[in-house]
Amino acid sequence: MTATAVLLLSCPDQRGVVAAVADFIAVHGGNIVHAEQHTDDVEQVFFQRVEFELDGFSLGQEEILPAFAQVSSRFAMHADLRFTDHKPRVAILASKQSHCLFDLLSRWHSGELPAEIVTVINNHPDHASLVEHMGVPYLHLPVTPQTKATQEQEVLRALNEQQVDLVVLARYMQILSPALVNAYQSRIINIHHSFLPAFIGANPYRQAHDRGVKIIGATAHYVTEELDEGPILDQEVSRVTHRDSVADLTRKGRDLETIVLARAVRAHLEHRVLVYGRKTVVFS
Amino acid sequence: MTATAVLLLSCPDQRGVVAAVADFIAVHGGNIVHAEQHTDDVEQVFFQRVEFELDGFSLGQEEILPAFAQVSSRFAMHADLRFTDHKPRVAILASKQSHCLFDLLSRWHSGELPAEIVTVINNHPDHASLVEHMGVPYLHLPVTPQTKATQEQEVLRALNEQQVDLVVLARYMQILSPALVNAYQSRIINIHHSFLPAFIGANPYRQAHDRGVKIIGATAHYVTEELDEGPILDQEVSRVTHRDSVADLTRKGRDLETIVLARAVRAHLEHRVLVYGRKTVVFS
Amino acid sequence: MTATAVLLLSCPDQRGVVAAVADFIAVHGGNIVHAEQHTDDVEQVFFQRVEFELDGFSLGQEEILPAFAQVSSRFAMHADLRFTDHKPRVAILASKQSHCLFDLLSRWHSGELPAEIVTVINNHPDHASLVEHMGVPYLHLPVTPQTKATQEQEVLRALNEQQVDLVVLARYMQILSPALVNAYQSRIINIHHSFLPAFIGANPYRQAHDRGVKIIGATAHYVTEELDEGPILDQEVSRVTHRDSVADLTRKGRDLETIVLARAVRAHLEHRVLVYGRKTVVFS
Amino acid sequence: MTATAVLLLSCPDQRGVVAAVADFIAVHGGNIVHAEQHTDDVEQVFFQRVEFELDGFSLGQEEILPAFAQVSSRFAMHADLRFTDHKPRVAILASKQSHCLFDLLSRWHSGELPAEIVTVINNHPDHASLVEHMGVPYLHLPVTPQTKATQEQEVLRALNEQQVDLVVLARYMQILSPALVNAYQSRIINIHHSFLPAFIGANPYRQAHDRGVKIIGATAHYVTEELDEGPILDQEVSRVTHRDSVADLTRKGRDLETIVLARAVRAHLEHRVLVYGRKTVVFS
Repeated sequence: MTATAVLLLSCPDQRGVVAAVADFIAVHGGNIVHAEQHTDDVEQVFFQRVEFELDGFSLGQEEILPAFAQVSSRFAMHADLRFTDHKPRVAILASKQSHCLFDLLSRWHSGELPAEIVTVINNHPDHASLVEHMGVPYLHLPVTPQTKATQEQEVLRALNEQQVDLVVLARYMQILSPALVNAYQSRIINIHHSFLPAFIGANPYRQAHDRGVKIIGATAHYVTEELDEGPILDQEVSRVTHRDSVADLTRKGRDLETIVLARAVRAHLEHRVLVYGRKTVVFS
Repeated sequence: MTATAVLLLSCPDQRGVVAAVADFIAVHGGNIVHAEQHTDDVEQVFFQRVEFELDGFSLGQEEILPAFAQVSSRFAMHADLRFTDHKPRVAILASKQSHCLFDLLSRWHSGELPAEIVTVINNHPDHASLVEHMGVPYLHLPVTPQTKATQEQEVLRALNEQQVDLVVLARYMQILSPALVNAYQSRIINIHHSFLPAFIGANPYRQAHDRGVKIIGATAHYVTEELDEGPILDQEVSRVTHRDSVADLTRKGRDLETIVLARAVRAHLEHRVLVYGRKTVVFS
Repeated sequence: MTATAVLLLSCPDQRGVVAAVADFIAVHGGNIVHAEQHTDDVEQVFFQRVEFELDGFSLGQEEILPAFAQVSSRFAMHADLRFTDHKPRVAILASKQSHCLFDLLSRWHSGELPAEIVTVINNHPDHASLVEHMGVPYLHLPVTPQTKATQEQEVLRALNEQQVDLVVLARYMQILSPALVNAYQSRIINIHHSFLPAFIGANPYRQAHDRGVKIIGATAHYVTEELDEGPILDQEVSRVTHRDSVADLTRKGRDLETIVLARAVRAHLEHRVLVYGRKTVVFS
Repeated sequence: MTATAVLLLSCPDQRGVVAAVADFIAVHGGNIVHAEQHTDDVEQVFFQRVEFELDGFSLGQEEILPAFAQVSSRFAMHADLRFTDHKPRVAILASKQSHCLFDLLSRWHSGELPAEIVTVINNHPDHASLVEHMGVPYLHLPVTPQTKATQEQEVLRALNEQQVDLVVLARYMQILSPALVNAYQSRIINIHHSFLPAFIGANPYRQAHDRGVKIIGATAHYVTEELDEGPILDQEVSRVTHRDSVADLTRKGRDLETIVLARAVRAHLEHRVLVYGRKTVVFS
């Protein structure tokens, strides 16, 4: 597998965009290995993900965006360029529950995630030994209502020091402040243990049990200032019955949470996600 | 297939209930063909569905409940007895959209539903010809904001005249009055075109599209006075993407609606549902 | 909705294809409303579906393919062009079971299928009345082992006379001869009541029951000379348990069959399917 | 949670069985917390799982089966009794791939599995460090075609020494000999990476890719002498498209394998499985 370049584009919908982008790549000797596009007919916005081989391309990585400016400026296009030989740096924030944390570490360990997991930050000391045994630095930053502001500054400092590209909240039970959210806009993925927008807030499995639903869910979303209202990346569901207690829902939900969070993280790391408004385009 | 009796039981959880019920059936020469039970550990309520063969049973259909009173009174039990050789009488209330209506008629036509569909009531004239061609009387009862009360009285009169056991709202777009709801408590099944409790109210597919969910759903529930808050019988979901317009969600949703409504109606007709509070026990 | 043109393309994978196609459309004033591509890395084949608006396009419908020849010949491309203002003519072949037949008619009746259903051919007389009531000619062509060859000639004649574009086997229980299959290559869709390649041949639900599987399925595929071996269009599954008898599997399977057949027919009618070898590319 | 007793029963179907079992428990002061039954109408076999509280039961654990003999002998019943305060001893056999192994260890670590994982046996040295870090002895038993018989004797000796109740093949790539299979009949669970009976044997994901299926699956089954033919415990599936390479199927399949294996192991550990012929009854 040679390295490829991934262009994530959005612009007002107009004629000739696809041809202009394809021409730019063809003219410089590029080979498109994957392209996918979407037009939001209501908002009249065009989105595209184009992946092309760097091997044989006549421009160096640093030269591509400047050269592409003639296309992007012509179509009032927002262009984001990434390279698959750059591994995004990921921080996982976790708490007492370990299922999402261990699952992500396990996938990373087996080479499934195209990323570097550079730190695990936890407000509890629980999983330090195993995390460190897997070769990831573990930062224990306890928090109380009184120390919340200070602790979050420490979190932010650690993220900055580690030059983190993506923050994954793996059942981290703290609500992030607007400052932290805005510092990593569209770069913090949370897993909420319900089928959003059902059961916003605390104890969604209890809420689901009280309502007597026959299906439960989990939702991965980007974190915004409004709790549980950020753009949804992925969701998954599981059938339940009257026999399932709150504990059963919680257990079944854990499998949903791990899988849907892993899928969302993977989509983000593969540069397949475009955010617009409160929605996402997730290319396949 | 010989006829069977179905006992639907609920009572405070206590020792000896299962044995007492099984003894009653064994003593009268009955053969249990299916039994399923559930205990709500939180509410401390016991539920059971017991199905036994009438062939060889020493009591006539009319004698069973009186004889069973010695068991039910001992355990403060609510007992509901039905026979599979009695086909419940069903009324379908529909509107302009035909998918749920035709699906139910098609299943009934092929013998899949253990019921008599005795009438289709519609506030529009749209599907009269096909419904009547399938041998079901079609009652066109138009409604305006001014005539709503009168129209509903006509609906109620028709249901009563036809001795209807179950009312199915097959995308009937009118909100029923408390009078009608209470006259057929736990006997009116509605299909709501969202994954309740998400997207209560009007235009759920538009709401789902605006929120950018990745999964849509449909919910069959008993109708109560509170809109979209009744006990849930069944739910089903389908994956969607950013490519799906509101029209696409609506189309995909139709398949969910037909299937989940048919499953819920079937469960009710087979006497597999017990309602308690705002929940259901749906035996398999 | 104005009419659009749909180009279905396949060619050896090579640089510049996407640009050449996009240029052709842009040069003639076309607006691409949807484009999707796929490269089979193993076979080194490129596939594309491009849909563009006819409104404002500088070439007439008849002129497009000849003009496009300069692109298609340059890339050794197979190009198939269709227009959404042409409704494909569909024949449904059915037998005693009605669920797939009625479902397709119901969808067509409500305008969901972009097609003309021009005839229903059945080797049994069962559903003539309802089909004709819905306005579709019903051709009863009974068959016995002795008359099979003759009957199939009559089927073929009817298809030809009606200028049928697509043949849908809606649980038609007869095996088609190679002559008929080859006359409508990649234009006959069958629904097989198993999760192929499991349970090829007769009585798949009994086979599934005997094997004790926990999930059953249905498969829509193009018909080829080898029974149940044609390219798969779509599949769907449903969970079952030890409690499900063969009759239960059959009933649950009917819902799978109707849905998966309808989805496959819809994909074909929307020109989203490319066949290669024994596989399909089904664009979304 | 106090300890409970679980009776797993099977016998020829006959009148009075349910009453006799319930009476036995009631007479000794037991409280049934869960009961589920099933009758195979074709084979005329009755199955039951009855779970009752030991607290307040008038018989000691050792006295129950002897006392119950009067019931079981009367109905020619096979009775299996287990107690939830006894944690089954589990051995995991693994190979190079770690996803199922780590998933089971992670669930066990968090208390989700009611078992003791007493050993991990691996023909490769790969995961020794992490397994031992989690507190489980790791036995590296390499195997070659020449040493296969000897290696398996060592496996068998280790299982016997550890008094293993359940053997889990977590993507263990060796075929077990009949001797080992028979020593642990209905106590060896394997995960096969296909939707059995489709794609028996080697490389099922490649087979699935070649056939062009639209859904892939995984199957947990008890191991019998016939490869991939043992009684199925559970299955799960996932949708795939033409875009998925063999590597994608393999990656998506890993999630299926981990989840379905964990569910099957959990069902076995909770004494919810009865095997008969080549099928299972899996109570819920």
